[in-house]
Amino acid sequence: MRTGIATVCLSGTLKEKMQACAIAGFDGIEIFEQDLVTSALSPEAVRAMAADLGLGLDLYQPFRDFDSVPEDLLRENLRRAGAKFELMSRLGMDTILVCSNVATAEIDDDGLRAEQLGRLAQLAGEHGVKVAYEALAWGKYVNDYEHAHRLVETVDHPNLGTCLDSFHILSRDWDTAPIEKFNAEKIFFVQVADAPKLSMDVLSWSRHYRVFPGEGQFELDKFMGHVVRAGYAGPVSLEIFNDVFRQSDVERTAVDAMRSLIWLEEQSAKWLDAHDGGAAAGSGKVAGRRRYPMELATLPKVAEPAGFNFAEVKADDTAALEKLLGQLGFEFEGRHRTKDVQLWTMGHARVIINEQAPSHAEPAIAALGFDVDNPVIASARAQQLKAPVVPRKVQADEEVFQGIAAPDSTEIFLCQGSPDGTAAWTAEFGQAGEFGDGVSAPVGAGAVIDHVNLAQPWQHFDEAVLFYTSALALEPAPFAEVPSPTGLVRSQIMQTTDRAVRLVLNLAPLIQQEDAGQQDGGRKSYQEHIAFAVDDLVGLARNARDRGLEFLEIPANYYEDLAARFSLDPGFLATLKELNLLYDRDASGEFLHFYTATVGSVFFEMVERRGGYDGYGAPNAPVRHAVQYDHARRPPN
Amino acid sequence: MRTGIATVCLSGTLKEKMQACAIAGFDGIEIFEQDLVTSALSPEAVRAMAADLGLGLDLYQPFRDFDSVPEDLLRENLRRAGAKFELMSRLGMDTILVCSNVATAEIDDDGLRAEQLGRLAQLAGEHGVKVAYEALAWGKYVNDYEHAHRLVETVDHPNLGTCLDSFHILSRDWDTAPIEKFNAEKIFFVQVADAPKLSMDVLSWSRHYRVFPGEGQFELDKFMGHVVRAGYAGPVSLEIFNDVFRQSDVERTAVDAMRSLIWLEEQSAKWLDAHDGGAAAGSGKVAGRRRYPMELATLPKVAEPAGFNFAEVKADDTAALEKLLGQLGFEFEGRHRTKDVQLWTMGHARVIINEQAPSHAEPAIAALGFDVDNPVIASARAQQLKAPVVPRKVQADEEVFQGIAAPDSTEIFLCQGSPDGTAAWTAEFGQAGEFGDGVSAPVGAGAVIDHVNLAQPWQHFDEAVLFYTSALALEPAPFAEVPSPTGLVRSQIMQTTDRAVRLVLNLAPLIQQEDAGQQDGGRKSYQEHIAFAVDDLVGLARNARDRGLEFLEIPANYYEDLAARFSLDPGFLATLKELNLLYDRDASGEFLHFYTATVGSVFFEMVERRGGYDGYGAPNAPVRHAVQYDHARRPPN
Repeated sequence: MRTGIATVCLSGTLKEKMQACAIAGFDGIEIFEQDLVTSALSPEAVRAMAADLGLGLDLYQPFRDFDSVPEDLLRENLRRAGAKFELMSRLGMDTILVCSNVATAEIDDDGLRAEQLGRLAQLAGEHGVKVAYEALAWGKYVNDYEHAHRLVETVDHPNLGTCLDSFHILSRDWDTAPIEKFNAEKIFFVQVADAPKLSMDVLSWSRHYRVFPGEGQFELDKFMGHVVRAGYAGPVSLEIFNDVFRQSDVERTAVDAMRSLIWLEEQSAKWLDAHDGGAAAGSGKVAGRRRYPMELATLPKVAEPAGFNFAEVKADDTAALEKLLGQLGFEFEGRHRTKDVQLWTMGHARVIINEQAPSHAEPAIAALGFDVDNPVIASARAQQLKAPVVPRKVQADEEVFQGIAAPDSTEIFLCQGSPDGTAAWTAEFGQAGEFGDGVSAPVGAGAVIDHVNLAQPWQHFDEAVLFYTSALALEPAPFAEVPSPTGLVRSQIMQTTDRAVRLVLNLAPLIQQEDAGQQDGGRKSYQEHIAFAVDDLVGLARNARDRGLEFLEIPANYYEDLAARFSLDPGFLATLKELNLLYDRDASGEFLHFYTATVGSVFFEMVERRGGYDGYGAPNAPVRHAVQYDHARRPPN
Repeated sequence: MRTGIATVCLSGTLKEKMQACAIAGFDGIEIFEQDLVTSALSPEAVRAMAADLGLGLDLYQPFRDFDSVPEDLLRENLRRAGAKFELMSRLGMDTILVCSNVATAEIDDDGLRAEQLGRLAQLAGEHGVKVAYEALAWGKYVNDYEHAHRLVETVDHPNLGTCLDSFHILSRDWDTAPIEKFNAEKIFFVQVADAPKLSMDVLSWSRHYRVFPGEGQFELDKFMGHVVRAGYAGPVSLEIFNDVFRQSDVERTAVDAMRSLIWLEEQSAKWLDAHDGGAAAGSGKVAGRRRYPMELATLPKVAEPAGFNFAEVKADDTAALEKLLGQLGFEFEGRHRTKDVQLWTMGHARVIINEQAPSHAEPAIAALGFDVDNPVIASARAQQLKAPVVPRKVQADEEVFQGIAAPDSTEIFLCQGSPDGTAAWTAEFGQAGEFGDGVSAPVGAGAVIDHVNLAQPWQHFDEAVLFYTSALALEPAPFAEVPSPTGLVRSQIMQTTDRAVRLVLNLAPLIQQEDAGQQDGGRKSYQEHIAFAVDDLVGLARNARDRGLEFLEIPANYYEDLAARFSLDPGFLATLKELNLLYDRDASGEFLHFYTATVGSVFFEMVERRGGYDGYGAPNAPVRHAVQYDHARRPPN
């Protein structure tokens, strides 16, 4: 697949954009006219730079408001087009995007439109230029891609074809199957964009909220499947208008963009694999892709992770972390043979405390380990998806961890899972044999990591969703918004089908990120936590209280409201209140949980899931936020 | 008018919110349930604190999903309501908001609904509580305020009334005139919210984009006019769900909120003044308000400013500013008799260079003077609208300036205008008689300040719109968005009818604000400028070039695009290019302009308006942004 991206997706000058596209590995770019007009580079200099960078200049765009106009305006438009065709020859470009008319269209007559597009094609032919005509979703008369393509067919000129843009098609809910019947030679260009499903006017939606494939909710695999089946083999290019991407670091955004196309390529192949067999063999569904002009590269395959292998927290002074874990009932399993890290366990929940933090670094979540079938294959996949590799020093006889960096800089380690939930590397800790399998106190025997909640900087939230989707095969749930005393917290759950892994990405209110002084888009501007699931939360909470654990203190008003919302046994309610436990219930089960105080940017949560309860106690989240906010503002003891 | 605000509008804890409301001068508040549930304060403590602060607790809200349900759920809902009524008695509150059912409504039967609301009213009566029933715009069966009111009339119980919320009514475009016919005794509460006109689903619109009255586009004066005419005299309370306000400083937001109600009070009175006379006297339109139970306080009146009196820039080292103004053709009129400030003029354009800046302070726009009819009245009005006063030291024989601080901290001075465009205070500069009336070189004789462009921090953009609307009588135009290399710049024009004053508020992309390290919401994170209009821009540009002015250098590509867009005389085009002039044209006229290089955060623009051209060269703004971005990143010479 020939990959492309429009310069309008990125921040910076034209030169910076082109360099970033080359670094990210794109085959070609679309030049957005305004980026050229505002550039100090001459067209010849742009052409030379593209050649040096190995970037194709695949599309000049956009040319607006051409068709469906009176004759005098048409002549003016042809003059305007001629000037652009001459500019294109200086740039060495041969394809221009012409959008259906929005602003100046006056005459709704397909015959006239075809005649006018024919004259444009004729002029383009004289300049050696090809015109890719696109139906904008909000075009005055032409806003349906099939309509645009019918006009192209009617004109039937070698210099006029169609441009298919997934946003303009899927935002209108047009059926994409008819694309397969298009003559591939008449498809001059394909643009792909994803978007969250929003109900707003389509122009605002398009201008501000497009995202890279895999970061939204459009069925792009299917769209691309139809395009491939039509026989198209040209560029597949991103055209994403997004308020955040336009502000973000250009090189980083270009890499995120490239990742989305690599992922889309795989998803398109999968869609074809799943649909071609059946189509070829009639009712006998046999999977298997037919051969098409467009080649679709494949990626190393990865299945959903089987669970969390460990979570790692890091600090300069680790005493507070050790105290918290000890009070919760975790067992200290010893220190690593060669590194300054400790292992603490409860059941199969493993927490590494890393002492190798910079001086004065506050406690923070540093890394997560996931159990995968084959760490090397999973790591290869992640690297092909442009994930940065995290090097970790190992001795000759120690387990090698495959590590990659998540967009928020959390280190993600791909570990060899085991069917019984144990981890071989724990043998590297403590005296040989002294701390065996890590199974500890009875009350926590069945403990596992239930979920981990990571705070995301606003610049990289969409990027993180695609990262975990593509590299770790987690599935995004619809996002939620949780009120807090300093604004709404956007909360995005990423999880496996069996819920063995649940990762929650939180986008904190901006003001909190600013307060934390994180100007480099770094993380840790906001509290994060690790939640452990146990079988007997009440028992565990009593033990923890007896060990002096500082619980997050829940207001009495909460329990009154709980009593108003649910009919609860008074004794049970009293227990909840006594132990600062929070409670939720839905049709499938119940949820009990409590939080510890925060050290640095980390706190812990203990949960008990009863029945089929699948949530996270969302109605209780505002209470947690409010109490934490209040605590953070109290003077220290 | 009894003023109120819902705690959900503000950030922080319940205690912080209540304190801020008291400081801002509200009569009462609505307690948003979640704020109480998450608070460590007991209901009794909240009641005592409100009494101490002099705040009425006017409404407990919301109670959701009560009506249109099967009998077993209704009983559960009555139990739930009973618990809340008991809580209210501890709080000493007597009115609760009950919203029409969204989530659990199953039975669409007005008879049943009336019966169920009747049972709620009965229970409420037993607790001494009044129920204000509100139609949510997205209520499942009840989403029209007239429908809700018909139910209230049907039940006809003294403890059941209606709550009117302007958002739920105006977002659906319901006619507001029928409110006048309502029995005022049945209107238990009125909530007001404004909003920009957005086409999106009404729930998202309501939850994120409500703004304070005067910051959006709803006809709230008319809505309030009908409410007043109905005979309602209870609280008028703000319920604004807004992502920004929830994050902003609580005391500042409370003051902004109060300003909006004061302004709304005046606007409502004006609407009544304009409409009552006509209504009373039939076809003979005589203005004049009738008497109503609700008293509407009045404000000192202010007309549109007649023009800019001066602009003031400030720096530690003012040499670069002096050089720029001199090269542009401004004349140095001398230093102030008693202060370290200089006066520079061109025609009636006056620029004060203030040398009293902190050490190392970069050049920045510090103050603007506006010509008003009566500075004292205008200042009194601004202060009643909660604008902070700016003290300015004066000697006994000097003109006293009335100063207020704009939300971005720019100092706004209200000056005595003069019909001939001169300013008496200029006599305080230079040697007596030496610099007379400030009229200077012929080419700039007709110069005036055309517009000023101020950068706004994101937390205070809406606040600034209301500030300039209410305190200075400027009118907001629809906002525009301008692409820049680091994101879209939101641009809001505030102007007078005759365009003697044009003020442009720019909301810079967030990343630029962060780059500038402005964590306190301070300004100057982004370039600002002062534009001067002259009669002969080409002549002035030639003179400036000869004096060595550093123009903002416009790329050659721009002039090629200009030639493609407009049919221009080649000689004229060559002149534009030679002098780095930008050009725009519309049906009413032409616009020529150029920019200087930037010093600190300030640059200057010179413009020439030909014919009736009323814009700002918007198509050229991206060029300006791109070149400035590029320059800022170049290593210094």
